[in-house]
Amino acid sequence: MYKLKHLLSTQDLSADDIYDFIALAKDFKALNRSDIKKSDSLRGKTVINAFFENSTRTRISFEIAAKRLGADAINFSAGSSSTKKGETLIDTIKNMQAMRSDIFVVRHASSGAAKFIASNCDASIVNAGDGLNEHPTQALLDLLTIHEAKGKFEGLEVAIIGDIFRSRVARSDAWAMKKLSINVRLFGPPMMLRDCEAFGCRICKSVEEAIEGADVIIMLRIQLERQDGEPSFPSVREYSKFFGLTAKRMQVAKEGVIIMHPGPINRGVEINSDVADDPRFTCILDQVENGAAMRMAVLHTINLNRSL
Amino acid sequence: MYKLKHLLSTQDLSADDIYDFIALAKDFKALNRSDIKKSDSLRGKTVINAFFENSTRTRISFEIAAKRLGADAINFSAGSSSTKKGETLIDTIKNMQAMRSDIFVVRHASSGAAKFIASNCDASIVNAGDGLNEHPTQALLDLLTIHEAKGKFEGLEVAIIGDIFRSRVARSDAWAMKKLSINVRLFGPPMMLRDCEAFGCRICKSVEEAIEGADVIIMLRIQLERQDGEPSFPSVREYSKFFGLTAKRMQVAKEGVIIMHPGPINRGVEINSDVADDPRFTCILDQVENGAAMRMAVLHTINLNRSL
Amino acid sequence: MYKLKHLLSTQDLSADDIYDFIALAKDFKALNRSDIKKSDSLRGKTVINAFFENSTRTRISFEIAAKRLGADAINFSAGSSSTKKGETLIDTIKNMQAMRSDIFVVRHASSGAAKFIASNCDASIVNAGDGLNEHPTQALLDLLTIHEAKGKFEGLEVAIIGDIFRSRVARSDAWAMKKLSINVRLFGPPMMLRDCEAFGCRICKSVEEAIEGADVIIMLRIQLERQDGEPSFPSVREYSKFFGLTAKRMQVAKEGVIIMHPGPINRGVEINSDVADDPRFTCILDQVENGAAMRMAVLHTINLNRSL
Repeated sequence: MYKLKHLLSTQDLSADDIYDFIALAKDFKALNRSDIKKSDSLRGKTVINAFFENSTRTRISFEIAAKRLGADAINFSAGSSSTKKGETLIDTIKNMQAMRSDIFVVRHASSGAAKFIASNCDASIVNAGDGLNEHPTQALLDLLTIHEAKGKFEGLEVAIIGDIFRSRVARSDAWAMKKLSINVRLFGPPMMLRDCEAFGCRICKSVEEAIEGADVIIMLRIQLERQDGEPSFPSVREYSKFFGLTAKRMQVAKEGVIIMHPGPINRGVEINSDVADDPRFTCILDQVENGAAMRMAVLHTINLNRSL
Repeated sequence: MYKLKHLLSTQDLSADDIYDFIALAKDFKALNRSDIKKSDSLRGKTVINAFFENSTRTRISFEIAAKRLGADAINFSAGSSSTKKGETLIDTIKNMQAMRSDIFVVRHASSGAAKFIASNCDASIVNAGDGLNEHPTQALLDLLTIHEAKGKFEGLEVAIIGDIFRSRVARSDAWAMKKLSINVRLFGPPMMLRDCEAFGCRICKSVEEAIEGADVIIMLRIQLERQDGEPSFPSVREYSKFFGLTAKRMQVAKEGVIIMHPGPINRGVEINSDVADDPRFTCILDQVENGAAMRMAVLHTINLNRSL
Repeated sequence: MYKLKHLLSTQDLSADDIYDFIALAKDFKALNRSDIKKSDSLRGKTVINAFFENSTRTRISFEIAAKRLGADAINFSAGSSSTKKGETLIDTIKNMQAMRSDIFVVRHASSGAAKFIASNCDASIVNAGDGLNEHPTQALLDLLTIHEAKGKFEGLEVAIIGDIFRSRVARSDAWAMKKLSINVRLFGPPMMLRDCEAFGCRICKSVEEAIEGADVIIMLRIQLERQDGEPSFPSVREYSKFFGLTAKRMQVAKEGVIIMHPGPINRGVEINSDVADDPRFTCILDQVENGAAMRMAVLHTINLNRSL
């Protein structure tokens, strides 16, 4: 079992750790589907959702996870906080930790923020997304979803399509999948493939090449709100035309392929509704359900490791 | 007892359903007045306050209700959410539902939003106000308040005064009161009585006519913040002069009349302080207390109906 | 033991009350350091954090305190509330109280707001900072911190340095310390010492005079965000030069002196990092830890007093 008190990066996970997290998350998924979704493994613990960058969906997933485990869950968002009054990030965290908080779930716009906090504080840190760097619980829930659908990891072909350069999901997925002997291929507009050789994955030349033969297709969200200053593609319509996933493009796909997306989806941009809602393909809502279960598994494990 | 898993409209309630909700709410009111305001009928359930339109008061009333029943209560407000990132309403809801949420308390600016969500999601939906349409828990708490004051419904005369056209409270009240053989009369400025024949109620010609003989007067809130583009009356001062409830106007009122208001009140606009604070008349704070109790009754019942 | 159902001002506390609060807070501090930080003394009670002025740090401290005591804790912030819709302060409070709320933790920009609310509402009020007036739980946690460090109060020399005029912390500290026979001395820029004779404390002429011989130095936060209209000092750099606490200035300090600060600190303005982080001096994070424990002691006591 995973022995660290933080979860910062999928690079820190062995293949065995990942299998353990998946097994535990399946137990919590069963609990979540039962009549009384409640455990008390975090009773008397304080979990702070420290969101220095907005993310309602991820915050709610972690808040639900913490509460179902019986923790006292506290929401902190930077918008209305003392960081605005000139306090340093570490001072803000150390203050909340001094109140005897046990676990911080950290979302931050800066790459490396979660690790920086972990090095400067005694509480446990779960990285809930730091800049362009990592989003390890997303990778773990993706892997749980793949394992449920495919029953194995070794030799699977996974295509990740979209803004690879800016995607912490792609990064966390790629590191984790490598440990599980999954073959990852990447595709996106040229500007969005900058520096992607670092992933050590196959880089595709077209959507069709990326789709063909893939067991799993992970579509990334086009962050329309980040296309202001220096857009990575000419227009939304063109993105959809050249890079979007459509029923037509799925004709070259392998039998039994599944489609995943970290959400929220932009219908008609990176993915068309005829694909996103097709029950033969889509695992998007499974990912969300698995997310709550996996976050319970992570909070539960991290908490046990604190007393080691 | 009410058998649906949603509460969307008072039109779905029979007279018996309403009496049952009132009886149950009285039990919860007694619990709320006791030393330990806590039940565990929603233990292990997840209630999402999905407020796509702001309403601190209603959100807190539902949050208190859910927590006193032992639920895990999660607040979602659209302001900082992924709906801003281009996600559709139904995708947002389906995502939160996939986390195995049981009940959504929905407030939305669009009429029909609650029903639309209910048709597209497996969780239970409680309509906490949708556009100009309905606000059924407000009607139920109004009826509890009237029942406590008058001991009966049949044959009562209820006046609803204000912006009827834009009032979901008036709409939910009117449908429910009809089922209980309450006679409803309406009054307001001409622009605020548009289409009010649809209610099938008596339309009054003056405040005095509305007040005279009424057992209950429900004053609606003038939504000053919505008078910007196309105001329904010339000025606040004139509204108060021609349509406001004052001690002077109450001289023609029936002995024992009670005054209600869904809040927040605009003192000196639709209601004067000499009336709002007069213990002979006012039931406004009773309504608020009854609101928390009635919402407990609704959440409790809806939850039982989910497993039917 | 303290017998009032509100905590509005340290002026209402006897020396014995303060000693009792400190003893109780030490028990809660031990609980907070234990494996399961959970009591049930407020089970079935509703605590509203009514923050009409933003303060993430104080809100979280009280929210943690309420939840660890088993209360249902509800956050209200004025930004998105009905006070914006023209509702009066008292109507807002009375509404939330009518939902059978037990305790309001009130933060408000107006001096006297907490007392005004306490006089107009049946619930218990804890003043969490009202304008320039008081912040009694801050004073109590300061005293707990001093007692832990010094083992006594009588005859101690305490220097409070900064914007005394605008500091509710200084005010609450000064009243409480007087009751404990602590000698308080004040220092700050001339504009920030306006009306400070009212404290009945020694007013110093220089930082050095304030530091020399002090057992405890309390540095106040320079509220940079309030220096807009009518600044109390020419520039931040000059403030630091003439009034800031630096390692160099600490050379004249007494052996064993401790440094406190209500936070958040402005590093390099009122306090330099070489002092703030020096383990020989700093008690700033002890204050934060003691804050959570003291707020538990206050909520616990206030709640008991409600039924007297």
